Amino acid sequence: MYVGQKATRVDAYDKVLGRAKYTDDLCDKGAYVAQVLHATIANGLVKSIDTSRAQAIPGVVKVFTCFDVKEKHFFPTAGHPWSTDPGHQDVADRLVLTQRVRFYGDDIAAVVAEDPVSAAQALAAIQVEYEEYPFVLDPQKAMEEGAPLLHENYPGNILSHTSIRKGDYQAAIRQEGLVKVEGWYDTPTVQHCHLENFICFAEMTGDRIRVVTSTQIPHIVRRVVGQALGIPWGRVQVIKPYIGGGFGNKQDVLYEPLCAWLCMNLGGHLVKLDVPREDTFVSTRVRHAIRSHIVSWVRPDGTYAARKLEVFSNQGAYASHGHSIAAKGMGAFPQLYPCENVECDAYTVFTNQSVAGAMRGYGIPQAMWAVECHTEEVAARLGMDPIEFRRKNLMPVGYVDPFSKNELYSDTFNQCMDKGMEAIGYREKYRAYQGQKGEVRRGVGMAVFWYNTAVWPISLETSSCRMVLNQDGSLQVQLGETEIGQGADTAFAQMTADVVGVPLDQVHVVSCQDTDVTPFGTGAYASRQTYTAGFSIRQTGQLLKERILAYAQELTRMPAYNLELREGNILRATDGRVLMSLGQLATQALYSLTNSQHLTAESTAQIKSNAYSFGCTFAQVEVDIPLCKVKLLDLVNVHDAGTLINPALAEAQVHGGMSMGIGYGLSERMLFDPRTGRPLNNNLLDYKLSTFMDHPRLRALFVENPEPTSAFGTKGLGEPPTCSVAPAIRNAIYHATGVFVNEAPMTPHSLFRRFKEEGLL
Amino acid sequence: MYVGQKATRVDAYDKVLGRAKYTDDLCDKGAYVAQVLHATIANGLVKSIDTSRAQAIPGVVKVFTCFDVKEKHFFPTAGHPWSTDPGHQDVADRLVLTQRVRFYGDDIAAVVAEDPVSAAQALAAIQVEYEEYPFVLDPQKAMEEGAPLLHENYPGNILSHTSIRKGDYQAAIRQEGLVKVEGWYDTPTVQHCHLENFICFAEMTGDRIRVVTSTQIPHIVRRVVGQALGIPWGRVQVIKPYIGGGFGNKQDVLYEPLCAWLCMNLGGHLVKLDVPREDTFVSTRVRHAIRSHIVSWVRPDGTYAARKLEVFSNQGAYASHGHSIAAKGMGAFPQLYPCENVECDAYTVFTNQSVAGAMRGYGIPQAMWAVECHTEEVAARLGMDPIEFRRKNLMPVGYVDPFSKNELYSDTFNQCMDKGMEAIGYREKYRAYQGQKGEVRRGVGMAVFWYNTAVWPISLETSSCRMVLNQDGSLQVQLGETEIGQGADTAFAQMTADVVGVPLDQVHVVSCQDTDVTPFGTGAYASRQTYTAGFSIRQTGQLLKERILAYAQELTRMPAYNLELREGNILRATDGRVLMSLGQLATQALYSLTNSQHLTAESTAQIKSNAYSFGCTFAQVEVDIPLCKVKLLDLVNVHDAGTLINPALAEAQVHGGMSMGIGYGLSERMLFDPRTGRPLNNNLLDYKLSTFMDHPRLRALFVENPEPTSAFGTKGLGEPPTCSVAPAIRNAIYHATGVFVNEAPMTPHSLFRRFKEEGLL
Repeated sequence: MYVGQKATRVDAYDKVLGRAKYTDDLCDKGAYVAQVLHATIANGLVKSIDTSRAQAIPGVVKVFTCFDVKEKHFFPTAGHPWSTDPGHQDVADRLVLTQRVRFYGDDIAAVVAEDPVSAAQALAAIQVEYEEYPFVLDPQKAMEEGAPLLHENYPGNILSHTSIRKGDYQAAIRQEGLVKVEGWYDTPTVQHCHLENFICFAEMTGDRIRVVTSTQIPHIVRRVVGQALGIPWGRVQVIKPYIGGGFGNKQDVLYEPLCAWLCMNLGGHLVKLDVPREDTFVSTRVRHAIRSHIVSWVRPDGTYAARKLEVFSNQGAYASHGHSIAAKGMGAFPQLYPCENVECDAYTVFTNQSVAGAMRGYGIPQAMWAVECHTEEVAARLGMDPIEFRRKNLMPVGYVDPFSKNELYSDTFNQCMDKGMEAIGYREKYRAYQGQKGEVRRGVGMAVFWYNTAVWPISLETSSCRMVLNQDGSLQVQLGETEIGQGADTAFAQMTADVVGVPLDQVHVVSCQDTDVTPFGTGAYASRQTYTAGFSIRQTGQLLKERILAYAQELTRMPAYNLELREGNILRATDGRVLMSLGQLATQALYSLTNSQHLTAESTAQIKSNAYSFGCTFAQVEVDIPLCKVKLLDLVNVHDAGTLINPALAEAQVHGGMSMGIGYGLSERMLFDPRTGRPLNNNLLDYKLSTFMDHPRLRALFVENPEPTSAFGTKGLGEPPTCSVAPAIRNAIYHATGVFVNEAPMTPHSLFRRFKEEGLL
Repeated sequence: MYVGQKATRVDAYDKVLGRAKYTDDLCDKGAYVAQVLHATIANGLVKSIDTSRAQAIPGVVKVFTCFDVKEKHFFPTAGHPWSTDPGHQDVADRLVLTQRVRFYGDDIAAVVAEDPVSAAQALAAIQVEYEEYPFVLDPQKAMEEGAPLLHENYPGNILSHTSIRKGDYQAAIRQEGLVKVEGWYDTPTVQHCHLENFICFAEMTGDRIRVVTSTQIPHIVRRVVGQALGIPWGRVQVIKPYIGGGFGNKQDVLYEPLCAWLCMNLGGHLVKLDVPREDTFVSTRVRHAIRSHIVSWVRPDGTYAARKLEVFSNQGAYASHGHSIAAKGMGAFPQLYPCENVECDAYTVFTNQSVAGAMRGYGIPQAMWAVECHTEEVAARLGMDPIEFRRKNLMPVGYVDPFSKNELYSDTFNQCMDKGMEAIGYREKYRAYQGQKGEVRRGVGMAVFWYNTAVWPISLETSSCRMVLNQDGSLQVQLGETEIGQGADTAFAQMTADVVGVPLDQVHVVSCQDTDVTPFGTGAYASRQTYTAGFSIRQTGQLLKERILAYAQELTRMPAYNLELREGNILRATDGRVLMSLGQLATQALYSLTNSQHLTAESTAQIKSNAYSFGCTFAQVEVDIPLCKVKLLDLVNVHDAGTLINPALAEAQVHGGMSMGIGYGLSERMLFDPRTGRPLNNNLLDYKLSTFMDHPRLRALFVENPEPTSAFGTKGLGEPPTCSVAPAIRNAIYHATGVFVNEAPMTPHSLFRRFKEEGLL
């Protein structure tokens, strides 16, 4: 069994040796270079663009402006599977270039040149005349009467407003003796900061267009490029090589449509579009800043009588993933701490800032910030131990979500919390740190999270797989699910080895997706891949094994039911004797003069289940009150992601998520100039990304309750690690200082303000 | 129906626009450059190699010599499918570099450098010390007692000797009144002269090696590279891009093993090996020069009483395709003009010259030269009209070959000859040109040919195919059968469109084979592809169609048997109403929330039949006797290749073959210095390749008798066009001059000698 083992990454050597091919490595040096001209106003209209000086620069091939976009094929960009139901399709509000500017950084023109220097010179030489409109950056202000309107069809700039109603909130709050706890909780606009910026290139072959791109979702990019160009989707071929991270940013279709459009307007010539870091910050996607308002009515026994949640999600200028992020966060609220009487309202609101899309956690880090800050406050108000309060109120074993049919099968919350408490020495420290007085104080805190693997039943979950047997008994595996740095290929290889019955080093995962030949799969998002691809790997692996054993019956004269395939050998089941190797069988099958067969298998698995992932974070901090500085002394994440396919990869995944959570809690925030809407810190010097220097030794622990719906007992672990880190740190700061901070990130600036307000300074 | 239509080549635009990617286009510019050091003696041993000066040249990475080949993995090179029966495997007599030199041009060392100039300087700086042996260039001399022996296990240098015995030749020739006609017939060593020289590059990924190569046979190259490196075959990945012709030279594994070996010995670094034209002539493969001896005993009524054939085939220094070429030629002899009493012997003999391998026609051009020169002579001796003599003796309708079970189903020979005679005005010209006296005379002549499509039952015939349906109803087709410039992809697309029922422009053939994901197929040779791939396309297309119609049943509520798929629409069979488009169905299937399916199909077809192709050439010449110069006035090829898939491509294929036949008959011959074995004209200046300037307007005519065993009624047409051209020209020269020329090519030199001998000069 390879599932459960710390196998070495299948791409380890190639990545260490620099052999792994990324998008730029594959682009011919003769490519034209495209660069995008971004708007320098936050809201308005392009009145004219003078490209004459730019066009005259040697090396410039052509300058395209928004006025060259004659056929207006509006397209959506969200990396969702697609729905044949128009009511369930994403909002199509983008053009490859736009005359109507909706944020500082919108795409209004593009230069294509023979080299990057000429292109940059040309960009600088373009002169744009704008008509400027007033703009709005705050979602609640954008909802106000008279606010500047971004999109005609969305009054109040509300992209969507959805609600949850359960029981009778208004009646419930009239009960006597209830404690009311209310709070507003804010999360920042942050950026993914994946190592490899977005890059793609496009070229025509025949009447088709081939796009090679750094994406998480090649099959979805194919569809969207088709929509954006107004051509049948089968005329688009998308290829995804190795990519240097995505974290959800590349779960959006970014500049593939523009690049393809430029290529088609240049006779199909190869065009490369390499987005610099500064533009990646502003003009790709960011995480939704979400403001949440929670009111809880709590009985004296520490149970919830009624609860209310309002969510205001800052969508930025275009719909992208839109309301699904706020909706996912809101959906967590009544499930994590069930209550009889609940009212929830979520608003996703257009504003004139960078477009928010998917980012690791997809609304849950924002929701957990609000909920777990609030939970700590409720426990404090009741004078209850925060952990005991959670134990009392968390989703109980046997809980079934009526919509998704997800069930909590095990006592995982308590198991995770127990493990975390023990690891960090919570009880002792919690007691020891009570009533500190000095300038430097310590605290421990924690937060839990809930995360839903995959997207069924909200959207389609489908995964197709193909396996191809070689003469030596090794095999290739093809999946639409993508390796984006997280180690997916290694997990897929381990699953395949177990299902088919071959040694791990005999499994070659075809890492590069090519929509022309790769079975359909929607890609890397929603922490879905290990869960969903597991189904198609298992189903396809069994098909392949059946074909192999049927062929083995011909060669061994044993009935297939008396044959097994283990570690690359065909065994007689009754006595375990090795009858032949799989390599011998594969060679004989291929070259047989009586029955030649290339043994392959391919199938689609539609997944109509999904699974909850759970866990918690424990943080130990030291707060220097005069300096308003927080030092992380210890950080422990505990996860129940079901059976771990590869504990080493799981641990690495958790470490990365914790790092992201630290930045989210303590330092990261994109700033926009309130007077102009201009982004102020769109670079890695001014944007304080969490780095190794900011981390304690990160600890990842696991509780493995095998998920009964899952093909390999596993469930999502890609996004969960980032969900509960920030509120755990916040609760530890509260423990140290007695101050609740409700706005992330908790920078020295915001701590200074809060410490002043609370009289510590 | 697209089969039978002159569809535009699917790769036409990309090739015209320069977008089509060939091997060199795909190689990263950072590749190391490998160049091969060839031996400068014809036979002997490398005693030592001094690489010190070469190694010191800046830019040189490493110099490898035959002494660095520690693990001696001997490998075969012939592009045959492989057999699990050791007795049926090709001779494994090659090493990546050899100490034992067997021809002038053998591979004894290789330089790897950062650039071609450093590599060339290093090659020139290597000093080799040889021990020289006597050498032999002529196969009959090589068979003599005491001749230098090339390979220890082959006494008399005979790689193989096979025989055919039928009836009782010795008894038959004792009949009274027989006319004996005897002749010796010689064909030259020629080279394929494909436009793109051989080139490949190799790089490691993980513990696997990827080879991108200009080959006809990617799946076979995979196996041979595995053998040559001594690694499991699944650890080799071979990719074949567009290639610029092969004509059989690239049906051999050429420098892929050496390139891969160099790469693996440099830590997996990318290494490119680009063979210059001069080396392509000498050190890749050539066509076997074959000398034939025919004795015919003819009854006065113009029928054969007994016949004898001896064949001496010049193999050159290594086995490559070996005896199969001479054997195929010999096999034609008793089938084309059946006779009761036949004795045939074929010898394939090692000599110290360039290695002979596969080349368009695979022994049949040599055999047709001998047989059709001889046939003309027999008719002349009997005073019979040469066409009437052929009509009397050619394979009769209903003839069945006992070995292959091939059958002559139609009166195709007479149909072809009638068509050719009419086209060239044979009867009138034949009469008009009789008895000319002047210095410049004209003549008409003809020759027939017989060709066996595909290789069953001598070897495996298997073809696998995969089809992948896109959202818009278009589809990709993957096959191991390769586009090598001949238009195979277009024929495959036409077949697919018809079988599945979609418009032709909705079929995207994946032209680039990648052994990791491309279904197994053995590649381009034996004029097999249209015939054999037809089976797997038809079988797989029907599977896909069944899947589509089964899904259509779900969506249309009509039973599948009342549904049809035509031109990309789902029709109700009973009234022909269009119920939905295939694009709608494909989209609904993929994104269905109840039954999501990526509709694909894949299957292997093993082919256990093959088919005869037939035809003839008619030539009209003008011979300037004093100048010994032949001018081709008219040339007509008539072919029965069954149903033509694409008449335009068929015509182009025939034109190319005729061009090759003209060179074979009139100008091409590789020369070797008898004193040293050194090749003398290994370049396109001194080697007189037939060009457009040497051609009359080439005319291709067809007789289409659908082949009943074939999936689309078609049979081989790749090689046949080159088979009967040279003897037809030779017979026209005879008609003009009364002189039989038995040695090809009929250059002014050889005509001068023959005209002198016959008293014309």
